[in-house]
Amino acid sequence: MALAGRLVDIHTHVYLPRYCSLLRSRNTVPRILTSSHDGKPDDRLLILDHEPSGGRPVGPQYWDRDEKIKFMDRHGIDLSVVSSANPWLDFLPASEAKTLASQLNEDLEQYCSESPQLSPSLKRLYGFGLLPLVPEISIAALLETVEQIYKLSYLKGIIMGTRGIGKGLDDEALDPVWAALEKTGLVVFLHPHYGVDEKAWGDKDNGHVLPLALGFPFETTIATTRLILAGVLDRFPSLRILLAHSGGALPQLSSRLASCIDHDPVVASRLSHDARWYLGKLYFDAVAYGPEELGFVSDVIARSARFGSGSPATLDKTVDRTLGSKRMLFGTDHPFFPPLQSTEKWKSVVENLQAIDAVSGWGQAEKEGVRGDNALSLFNLV
Amino acid sequence: MALAGRLVDIHTHVYLPRYCSLLRSRNTVPRILTSSHDGKPDDRLLILDHEPSGGRPVGPQYWDRDEKIKFMDRHGIDLSVVSSANPWLDFLPASEAKTLASQLNEDLEQYCSESPQLSPSLKRLYGFGLLPLVPEISIAALLETVEQIYKLSYLKGIIMGTRGIGKGLDDEALDPVWAALEKTGLVVFLHPHYGVDEKAWGDKDNGHVLPLALGFPFETTIATTRLILAGVLDRFPSLRILLAHSGGALPQLSSRLASCIDHDPVVASRLSHDARWYLGKLYFDAVAYGPEELGFVSDVIARSARFGSGSPATLDKTVDRTLGSKRMLFGTDHPFFPPLQSTEKWKSVVENLQAIDAVSGWGQAEKEGVRGDNALSLFNLV
Repeated sequence: MALAGRLVDIHTHVYLPRYCSLLRSRNTVPRILTSSHDGKPDDRLLILDHEPSGGRPVGPQYWDRDEKIKFMDRHGIDLSVVSSANPWLDFLPASEAKTLASQLNEDLEQYCSESPQLSPSLKRLYGFGLLPLVPEISIAALLETVEQIYKLSYLKGIIMGTRGIGKGLDDEALDPVWAALEKTGLVVFLHPHYGVDEKAWGDKDNGHVLPLALGFPFETTIATTRLILAGVLDRFPSLRILLAHSGGALPQLSSRLASCIDHDPVVASRLSHDARWYLGKLYFDAVAYGPEELGFVSDVIARSARFGSGSPATLDKTVDRTLGSKRMLFGTDHPFFPPLQSTEKWKSVVENLQAIDAVSGWGQAEKEGVRGDNALSLFNLV
Repeated sequence: MALAGRLVDIHTHVYLPRYCSLLRSRNTVPRILTSSHDGKPDDRLLILDHEPSGGRPVGPQYWDRDEKIKFMDRHGIDLSVVSSANPWLDFLPASEAKTLASQLNEDLEQYCSESPQLSPSLKRLYGFGLLPLVPEISIAALLETVEQIYKLSYLKGIIMGTRGIGKGLDDEALDPVWAALEKTGLVVFLHPHYGVDEKAWGDKDNGHVLPLALGFPFETTIATTRLILAGVLDRFPSLRILLAHSGGALPQLSSRLASCIDHDPVVASRLSHDARWYLGKLYFDAVAYGPEELGFVSDVIARSARFGSGSPATLDKTVDRTLGSKRMLFGTDHPFFPPLQSTEKWKSVVENLQAIDAVSGWGQAEKEGVRGDNALSLFNLV
């Protein structure tokens, strides 16, 4: 395969200039607070209620395509599938969200189409589009936007938060949207923003650590579990859903989930398969920062085949974790998690690359798969 | 070792008769709602706000020691370390909580002391006592209760929720309590009750599945992370803390946690070690329902030594997961998770035993350790 050995980043964000203008014009979160410190601009991004530490410092790495390419060059990343960062359009009224989604999808198409060539047939940048997933939007408007994204050559999927049109992703009103996404083959990148209720974090100052390290993965775990419990993966078996942060806590809680389902009269026998089976239908980014985590996620994917209805569940054989690697894809979370001190390479990126390299039981083919080949295949970039 | 091969259950609960009387006398949650259906008693346990499905059916397995012994006999369990079930004393005013803690500790001592002999030197039942951890309790009252428990021969630790005296376990007011627990060597069994805010579960009827499968482990994960971030494990390095449900999501999120700490100016360099180091100081029950989960938890414990300050972090060698098994201990969560149909053995118990047996990379010694030897050693039951 001509492109073997490519490094592809499928978890990398942008606030497009049009979106930044909106954030700068706002008085409430999400917003960019523009000020200066000693004559230098000191812009701060505030995306969460009660943002700790006065917000994150933001600069051109959040919106400038040249900065994205520089970051990629510095870390040896050949190709990136870029997505708008949270909270997307969640805070907008329906009509505004629809218009802005459409404009931002066009903007991202241009952002990608004008990026350097990687090869005669490939650009260095592709993108995940946005749907106007907000309360009171019409399903027709969502379907129109799916169609728009499908027609834009450089957009290969959509990024989605967990609130749907206000009631979460287990809302059956979304069924036509899932159907359209399944039919078009667009990859759905499921990404958190809200975490869980902040009362859980207590009153000590721990900066962003608790909402980011725990709240984000919890939210992804809840949303995916609710998708499973609502039968979405039964009704739309060809949906291609990519989970941020390696699925959060879902892999580690998946056998507990299966057991709780088995023991609850309300849900027992509602699903077509054991809960663990559905994890083998999902894709997981490899943004977990440790080789043991990645190896475990690949075990959980690999074992899923044992749990289809009708499969005799056998626990007595070691799973082949090379199989699970096929659904895992390298990502960086750029431009978030910048190093506190200036360094040539970002620690967060180096750690995720080292983690892939150090997974016990993965050979060269699995590692190259996770580094890039799986992404090229998932996004049909050949 | 004379007792090798014993099966020991360290996660098994009781509502002592005195506590049940209190629950029956109450009009608000937690309560036991006594009614009858076709002439037969139909008691329901309501321990959560907005309890789904009208509450859990409860019967003598929740309070009767003979039922506990029968359950143990049916599953080949030699010895159990029994703990009061949530929500303990959390809902009581301080003076009442202090008195009741003291009485329930005496009750549990008697419950154990009158249990059958396992061997000339051992009973079949031991216990975790209760501290009156409620708002406005005096630290002196907590220390008196630690002392009481320490003096009761059959109580080998305490079970604890996550709220402390109202502000969580990262409250420095608790330092004298940690100091006393460290000094006495009592094992602290950290157990969830509250989950996270129920709004996260959406409005579909999924019974108890979401709060139990996800909320419970999330709560344990948050509490333990807050303990780590507050430096409790730095100040009290000999504390012996046992985490319910294999530590919830903490193992899978531990490298992400370390990365978030590294990248946050508020907490970077506050801790003595990388976050992953602390997981090697903890104990984990083996209540995770899958061999891959257990193997992964043992990897995470085993790798912790690499992350002490001063240790050169090496990712390039496979961890020895046999080492991690030493801190893992079989449990059943009885009398919760009863099978929906009447069966000889409980599926939840069988699954956890099969999972231990199927962990790849554990030999007979590791499996016997997790089944019982580690518990006998942790609780000094020799």
